[in-house]
Amino acid sequence: MQLLIANKNYSSWSMRPWLVLKAFNLPFDEVMIVFSDEPYAGEFKQKVLAVNPNGKVPILLDQEQMVWDSLAICEYLAEKFPQHALWPADLALRVRARCISAEMHSGFMSLRSQCGMNIHADLKALGAKLWAEDESLRKDMARIEQIWTARPRLDGFLCGEFSIADAFYAPVVMRLNTYGLPVSDSAQRYMALMIAHPAVQQWMQEAVAEPMRVAYLEANP
Amino acid sequence: MQLLIANKNYSSWSMRPWLVLKAFNLPFDEVMIVFSDEPYAGEFKQKVLAVNPNGKVPILLDQEQMVWDSLAICEYLAEKFPQHALWPADLALRVRARCISAEMHSGFMSLRSQCGMNIHADLKALGAKLWAEDESLRKDMARIEQIWTARPRLDGFLCGEFSIADAFYAPVVMRLNTYGLPVSDSAQRYMALMIAHPAVQQWMQEAVAEPMRVAYLEANP
Repeated sequence: MQLLIANKNYSSWSMRPWLVLKAFNLPFDEVMIVFSDEPYAGEFKQKVLAVNPNGKVPILLDQEQMVWDSLAICEYLAEKFPQHALWPADLALRVRARCISAEMHSGFMSLRSQCGMNIHADLKALGAKLWAEDESLRKDMARIEQIWTARPRLDGFLCGEFSIADAFYAPVVMRLNTYGLPVSDSAQRYMALMIAHPAVQQWMQEAVAEPMRVAYLEANP
Repeated sequence: MQLLIANKNYSSWSMRPWLVLKAFNLPFDEVMIVFSDEPYAGEFKQKVLAVNPNGKVPILLDQEQMVWDSLAICEYLAEKFPQHALWPADLALRVRARCISAEMHSGFMSLRSQCGMNIHADLKALGAKLWAEDESLRKDMARIEQIWTARPRLDGFLCGEFSIADAFYAPVVMRLNTYGLPVSDSAQRYMALMIAHPAVQQWMQEAVAEPMRVAYLEANP
């Protein structure tokens, strides 16, 4: 299997299936297509369009199958590796995991657009300003708090053991780290657990080590 | 099973799992919680919050399980009824179906926000104006055309037989009908096939018959 991703520092969509593959020790090759200086354009777009008319990453290539959406990639992997609990084995936990993952896939627009993932950066001053001014951002965070606090064990992951659901919320952990938005003790504990996870650690270290900086993704003051 | 939905005329999220349940003749009771006059507020919000802190419909209740996201509901049903091909049985078609459904779940923001579902209305004049002025709407439609045109048979559904993928694109068919955006012959043929489907027919008829009108959802001139 081959996973096409973009820059680890910025690409929150790429991070999700990559974490799932790493966390469950599934064999894959990583191919990075670095972002161009213009949003969704330039060489990046051309290279991705050569693979998939959607023009976005991540893309999983597995022999003749091309899977081009991060959630669909995770469902594909869960089906292909039933011996691993990519989704929790317990029905109620699996329902919760699928609901919160799909909710992240379709929502949290304020958090995602205002606080773009930028792992190497310290944007706590901007975060404080956004927090004070943006009610929709505070609403998104209130829902994140609900979801994280409702995890089955306070010292565990969102649905017990690490699952696809955690991979879907990992970019939020990165954003909160960068922007320093206020979170509850319970949320802090979840963030610490996530950041200590070996797959998350590896992604973060490789993100920070990337020499490429993309101006429009660094535009935040 | 019980499916909680909002007004059929407006609630594109509700339409998707409802169509899947109807199209595959799965037994369920429908419970409608009508929209209040304020967006995401009022009695509607209170009633939904009493079931689920996310505060949104659709919600599927199946004994002790509560499934609260439209895509997660469809995955839940696909798992519960493996004897029906809610996702296509063929792997390549299933991959495509999951990718395009997840892509709809996370994308097409211009189309979804500019052309809200409003089945009873004729908004072709507004549609022509939006089409002329809004490049991001035209981009969304270009991607819809790609996805629809790539269906395996021109006289068939998006992934062969009717599947979850078609339920996810049904609200787009409704929007194009209402706003009269220009589409290719191939897309027109798909729209005609969808509109003739008994489950879509029933939803549309019940939508048009609804007496409730919600001002903020009718605000388009």
